[in-house]
Amino acid sequence: MPPKNDTFLRALRREPTPYTPLWIMRQAGRYLPEYNATRARAGSFLNLCKSPDFATEVTLQPLARFPLDAAILFSDILTIPDAMGLGLEFAEGEGPRFRHPLRDESDIAKLAAPDPSGSLRYVIDAVAQIRKALAGSVPLIGFSGSPFTLACYMIEGQGGTEFERVKTMLYDRPDLLHRVLAVNAEAVTAYLNAQIAAGAQAVMLFDTWGGALSQAAYLEFSLAYLQRIVQGLAREHEGERVPVIVFTKGGGIWLEHIAGIGCDAVGLDWTVDIGAARRRVGDRVALQGNLDPSVLFASPAVVQREAGKVLAAFGRGHGHVFNLGHGISRHTSPENVAALVEAVHSQSRAQH
Amino acid sequence: MPPKNDTFLRALRREPTPYTPLWIMRQAGRYLPEYNATRARAGSFLNLCKSPDFATEVTLQPLARFPLDAAILFSDILTIPDAMGLGLEFAEGEGPRFRHPLRDESDIAKLAAPDPSGSLRYVIDAVAQIRKALAGSVPLIGFSGSPFTLACYMIEGQGGTEFERVKTMLYDRPDLLHRVLAVNAEAVTAYLNAQIAAGAQAVMLFDTWGGALSQAAYLEFSLAYLQRIVQGLAREHEGERVPVIVFTKGGGIWLEHIAGIGCDAVGLDWTVDIGAARRRVGDRVALQGNLDPSVLFASPAVVQREAGKVLAAFGRGHGHVFNLGHGISRHTSPENVAALVEAVHSQSRAQH
Repeated sequence: MPPKNDTFLRALRREPTPYTPLWIMRQAGRYLPEYNATRARAGSFLNLCKSPDFATEVTLQPLARFPLDAAILFSDILTIPDAMGLGLEFAEGEGPRFRHPLRDESDIAKLAAPDPSGSLRYVIDAVAQIRKALAGSVPLIGFSGSPFTLACYMIEGQGGTEFERVKTMLYDRPDLLHRVLAVNAEAVTAYLNAQIAAGAQAVMLFDTWGGALSQAAYLEFSLAYLQRIVQGLAREHEGERVPVIVFTKGGGIWLEHIAGIGCDAVGLDWTVDIGAARRRVGDRVALQGNLDPSVLFASPAVVQREAGKVLAAFGRGHGHVFNLGHGISRHTSPENVAALVEAVHSQSRAQH
Repeated sequence: MPPKNDTFLRALRREPTPYTPLWIMRQAGRYLPEYNATRARAGSFLNLCKSPDFATEVTLQPLARFPLDAAILFSDILTIPDAMGLGLEFAEGEGPRFRHPLRDESDIAKLAAPDPSGSLRYVIDAVAQIRKALAGSVPLIGFSGSPFTLACYMIEGQGGTEFERVKTMLYDRPDLLHRVLAVNAEAVTAYLNAQIAAGAQAVMLFDTWGGALSQAAYLEFSLAYLQRIVQGLAREHEGERVPVIVFTKGGGIWLEHIAGIGCDAVGLDWTVDIGAARRRVGDRVALQGNLDPSVLFASPAVVQREAGKVLAAFGRGHGHVFNLGHGISRHTSPENVAALVEAVHSQSRAQH
C-alpha cells in the first residue's frame, strides 16, 4: 500500500504532486541534539548503526521535528566491506578506517559478497523495524555505497586520501580493481534487494568518489557497476514500483551517461544548475537535489531565497525531489532546516 | 622576439605546430631530488619563493631534465595576500596558513591591493631573472591565484576546509565578499601586468577552489572577477601577443562560460573528456590539459598509453597544450615524467 504521503514516490515517477517533496541527505545526524543524545546512549557510532532499535529511533527523529516527505534508513555506507571482514572502525573525531584494508592480490582473491541475511542482518532488521514504525506515513529509502566508492575505502583503508592506491591499481592492475568491483556490485545488489524485501520503498546508490575519476575511468570503473546493480534490482515490491536514485558527487558533466543506466532519478550535487540538468536529461529521469548545504549556515531569510532559486531553476512541472547537494553539515542549526522545509513546501505549491 | 621553441605560444593561438607542446603543472616540485636539495639549502619553502636566485634555479631544473615546451615562474599562489599583510606561513608537513586571516568587517575594510613593485618585488625580479636565464629557449609563464581562491585562503585562514567561513559570508554578507574579491582582482591585474612587463610571455590564472561553488555563485563570485582581470591585462608586450589561460579545477560543467570571458585558453582538469570539451568550446579557445596526474603512478607503458588516449580524444588539428589535469604529485617518479614527455612529443607528430 502506498504511504499516506506519497509525494516523494510520485515525484520520482515524474507524476503530479501538490508541491515539491523534500528530504535531506544525512537528515538523521549530528546537527540534531536528540541524535547526539541517542548516540551518547549507544556509546559509539557503530553501536548506533548495528542496533535496529537505535537505528529506528534516530531515523524517526528528523521526521518528528520537520514535515519531511521521506525517511532514510540510518546506517553507514561501509557496512558491506565490514561484513566482508575488513574491520570497520571509527576513531574519535576522525573518519572511518578499516583494520584490514585490501593490500595485495591474495586479499582480493579471497573477497566474497556477504549474504545479507548473515552478517548484514542487523541492517535488514532495521529496515523492517523502521518501516513498521513509520506506520505508512512517508516512504522509507534504503541505500548503499557504490562499488567504486566502497572500493576506495577498501583499498585506501580510509577516506580523505588522494586515491593514490586505488588509482595506481586502476591504471596498473585494472584486472584486480575489476575483481573488487564485481564482488562489490554483487554484494550491493543482494544487499539492496534484501532491503527492498524488508520494506524499503525506494533505494539510493551513493557514489561519493566517482567524481575523482577521469571520464573514461568513471564509465568503466564506476558507472558500469552502477548499471549492473540497477539491472539486478527488484524494481517492484508489494505491487508498487521501487524507484532507484543514483548520485555521483561531482558527476555533473556525466549526467547524460548516468541518466542512461536505467535508474529512475539522478542525484545532483550543488555545482550543477538544476535547470540546465533538466534540459539535458529531464525527459528520461527525475532529478534530486541540489541546494548547496552551506546555504544553511546563512540566515533563514537567505535559506528561503536560495531554496526559491533552486525551485525556480527547475521550473514548472514534475519530477523534482528537493534535497541538498550533499549531506547536511553537523554545524547546521535545526531552525534553518525548519525554514528550508517550510520554504520548499510553500513556495513550490505555486509551481504545481 | 619569440623563443626558439614557440610551440606552446603557437598552440595557445591555435596555430599549427609540428607536435603537441607540453608542460606540467608544478613541474618544479618535490618529485625532483634536485628541487629538494635546493629547498634544503634555502631552509624553507618561503625562502625559496622569496629569493629570485633560488626561484630561478628551481624553475630551470625540470627543463634541464626534460624537453618541456614552457617554463613557469616558481612561486606560490598566496604571495598577494602575504603582501597584503596577512602573514603567510608554512608549518612543516602542513599546507599554507595565514597568521592574520580576515576575521571581521574592519579587516576587510582595511584591505588594499599591494603595489607589485613594493612588497611583491621579489616575484617581479624572479620573472626578469628567469626570463634572462632561459635565453630565448622556451617561453616563460607567469601566474596568479584567482580572486576567489585567494579569498578562500584569506577568509578561512588555511586550505583543506569545507569553506564554511567563506560560504557563510557569500550567502549572508555578499557585500563583504565582493569587497575582498574586488581588491583581489585589482591586485592580481597589477601583479600579472608587472610579470608581463618583466618578461612573462603568457599568464595563467589558477582558480583552485571555484569548483566548490554552485553555478550561480561561481559566475558571480569567481568568473566575474576572472573576467575583470582578463579585461585589464596587457595582452601584448614587445610586439608579441601575451596569451591568458584560465583554469578552474572542477569547472568542467562551466566550460562555455569560462571560454566566454576573453581568455585565450581554458585549462581542464582530468574529469572532462577533452574531445567533448573541444566540441563545446574549441572554436573559441585553446585547451590545456588533461591527464589524470595519478596515471604517473603507473608503469611507463601505461603512461604512454594514457597520454595517447588524451591526444586521441583531442583529435587532429591545433590548439592543444598537453598538461596534467592538476599539479604533479610529489610521489611521482621522474622516469615516468620522461616517459610522458617522450610519448606526447612522439605520438602527437602524427596528428599534426
